[in-house]
Amino acid sequence: MSKSQEVEAFGWACRDPSGVLSPFKFSRRFWATGDQDVRLKVLYCGICRSDLMMNKDYWGVAMYPTVQGREIVGVVTEVGKKVQKFKVGDKGGVGCFVGSCWKCKSCANNLENHCPDQMPIGTPPYIDGMIIHGGFSDHIVTDEHFVLRWPDNLPLDSGVPLLGAGITMYSPLKYFGLDKPGMHIGVVGLGGHGHLTVKIIKALGGKVTVISTSPEKEVVIKSLGVDSFLVSSDLDQMQIAMGTLDGIIYTIPAVHPLQPLIDLLKTHGKLVMGGGPVELLDLPVSLLIVGKYISLTGMYKKSRDAWSCTTLSYLALVFDITLGFIYKIEKDSIADLGYGMIGRKIVAGTDLGGLKETQEILDFAAKHNIIADVGVIPIDNVNTAMECLEKGDVRYRFVLDVANTLKTT
Amino acid sequence: MSKSQEVEAFGWACRDPSGVLSPFKFSRRFWATGDQDVRLKVLYCGICRSDLMMNKDYWGVAMYPTVQGREIVGVVTEVGKKVQKFKVGDKGGVGCFVGSCWKCKSCANNLENHCPDQMPIGTPPYIDGMIIHGGFSDHIVTDEHFVLRWPDNLPLDSGVPLLGAGITMYSPLKYFGLDKPGMHIGVVGLGGHGHLTVKIIKALGGKVTVISTSPEKEVVIKSLGVDSFLVSSDLDQMQIAMGTLDGIIYTIPAVHPLQPLIDLLKTHGKLVMGGGPVELLDLPVSLLIVGKYISLTGMYKKSRDAWSCTTLSYLALVFDITLGFIYKIEKDSIADLGYGMIGRKIVAGTDLGGLKETQEILDFAAKHNIIADVGVIPIDNVNTAMECLEKGDVRYRFVLDVANTLKTT
Repeated sequence: MSKSQEVEAFGWACRDPSGVLSPFKFSRRFWATGDQDVRLKVLYCGICRSDLMMNKDYWGVAMYPTVQGREIVGVVTEVGKKVQKFKVGDKGGVGCFVGSCWKCKSCANNLENHCPDQMPIGTPPYIDGMIIHGGFSDHIVTDEHFVLRWPDNLPLDSGVPLLGAGITMYSPLKYFGLDKPGMHIGVVGLGGHGHLTVKIIKALGGKVTVISTSPEKEVVIKSLGVDSFLVSSDLDQMQIAMGTLDGIIYTIPAVHPLQPLIDLLKTHGKLVMGGGPVELLDLPVSLLIVGKYISLTGMYKKSRDAWSCTTLSYLALVFDITLGFIYKIEKDSIADLGYGMIGRKIVAGTDLGGLKETQEILDFAAKHNIIADVGVIPIDNVNTAMECLEKGDVRYRFVLDVANTLKTT
Repeated sequence: MSKSQEVEAFGWACRDPSGVLSPFKFSRRFWATGDQDVRLKVLYCGICRSDLMMNKDYWGVAMYPTVQGREIVGVVTEVGKKVQKFKVGDKGGVGCFVGSCWKCKSCANNLENHCPDQMPIGTPPYIDGMIIHGGFSDHIVTDEHFVLRWPDNLPLDSGVPLLGAGITMYSPLKYFGLDKPGMHIGVVGLGGHGHLTVKIIKALGGKVTVISTSPEKEVVIKSLGVDSFLVSSDLDQMQIAMGTLDGIIYTIPAVHPLQPLIDLLKTHGKLVMGGGPVELLDLPVSLLIVGKYISLTGMYKKSRDAWSCTTLSYLALVFDITLGFIYKIEKDSIADLGYGMIGRKIVAGTDLGGLKETQEILDFAAKHNIIADVGVIPIDNVNTAMECLEKGDVRYRFVLDVANTLKTT
């Protein structure tokens, strides 16, 4: 990639931790078009939580001025002479990073998102002291390897969140084996990431239970094809659902206690944090190890008084090694107990995906009509959108109509 | 299995939460020899922490009197007429449970340890109000499926802990893919479970780093073939080792902070809790998601002042999204950075293994001369041994010489 040229660019930058964005002229140093490079005119750019976190320096690593925007779709306006994947006029997507080392094990395994020398948009490392500005701008240039082919029938505006939120949730479903038809997956939260997660699981043939602290979310689940809904503060509901889920995808930046989620998992169940708070969460280790021990009633009918029960069927006794506590839960059927409820559960983290898998989710989404529910807004409204995002007042995702609304003068 | 007969048995029982054991005569109701059953005269029985926990009712689910002992090796004295695997005079092992439902998914997948209706030794569920007494006794009877073939060259006394501690650590190494030659595995703690874990990993061809809060443990690691040793309170040591481990097996019942352990893991690294405290542990979720971001120095030489550094090689900068904090660590070589240090890490729980895998570890141990370092003691000393175990004053495992020391009168 040639470093000899500087190219003028224009976008909306944040200049300090106030988080306020305003028009900004800058040069894309390093990012002149090299032989393998593609220049994209930005058409749409999704707004995600990372943009907010960096603008307001909530992670303490911001470098101002900063042009955020890491879910980008555009049209190719220029290609380097060795570019094979694109020609001028093609649509292409860029998501979250624009370079990696090509040499490490992660790169060799199509996991550029785990390369220790990746070049992320808008966050450290700041190569030679320069931040890589994102898609709240008129154009972006990067090696063709980091540009995704855009499927013809995938909408630009409502498809663009697949490059961030979409791949972040699709990749762990594959990696952790939660992508099998018939699997029952829980989704914690129903925001930008959560609603896309639901759609992806449904397209994979899974059954989805949304878990939320907000009972009012229940009214929207039908339109998403959600199979059932749990209000996590409703202990009766949560007890009945214990041991029924193969996996849970946690999609929110807020604190939700882990213990009741772990209880919802079957043996070998996986709680995958596709997002999470910066706060430390309480981890009940013994529930990962042995879980709560459930056994059917019949076994207990002659047990000592405290554990005896009067009905012979479908009443389960729960043994919690942490609490040393036994209680009864009713089950609709023995089948509900699924794989048993004894441990070997995991809590996992996950973030983004590699280029190969990101292409896969775009193609998969095009095939299955998976798009985000978006509010498309002019770039002049970006500050209002950021405020709504901070307040959680967005259903489900804002997308900036950059090409039609960015005034370069 | 015939329930019509009662068979007299004799052992040492605990009668109340004092934890004191004394001689005890009981009947093994249900456990008369059926067609598929094998009767074993107990030769040796290992003492493990679960025995202590149940005797003193630390889990709040004890039923007294209780005869503990879940690592049992014996000689076959009687076989049912349909038994195929054993003949009188054979050696056989019994570990932790003596029955399961045969019908559930776990049983179908050789994971009887996860069957919700398993019949564990010495813990609930107490079938028909009866506890299944363990190996601190003269004999035990069970279906042949739950009796392991004892390899000819595997010592009885020092091999018997493989039935509890051994399988508990071997199974997750296999399940979580940490059994590949050349992998670098950390082992937290060097007690009964820990020292066996080390030996198993070495036999699998792995590299082992023991992580301990006790610097004095370092003197014993050479005899175990440990490759390196980390004192977890030594922050310099821990920083240098960041991002170097494929997996960590946590083998202790005590609290060790998870954060520094997670930091030791490479991308996709796995922290497996093969034991753990009943207390809640602090989980830094963002370290599972994105980990600490390490990048080599050269990239930063023109960065803003706070992050600049004067040497160009092998000095890594660490970005912790939780703390919003950057610091430098020195690395011996770029290779040390291994797979990068970015997230998708997991914390997992695990407990025991199925019968197939338990047979596998016995055979594997016999082939690779893996035995526990044991103190063989007469059953009259069981109370002293329990006290030592509670104080952590045991290197590494007590085994009761039942056959030679249990007086039945």
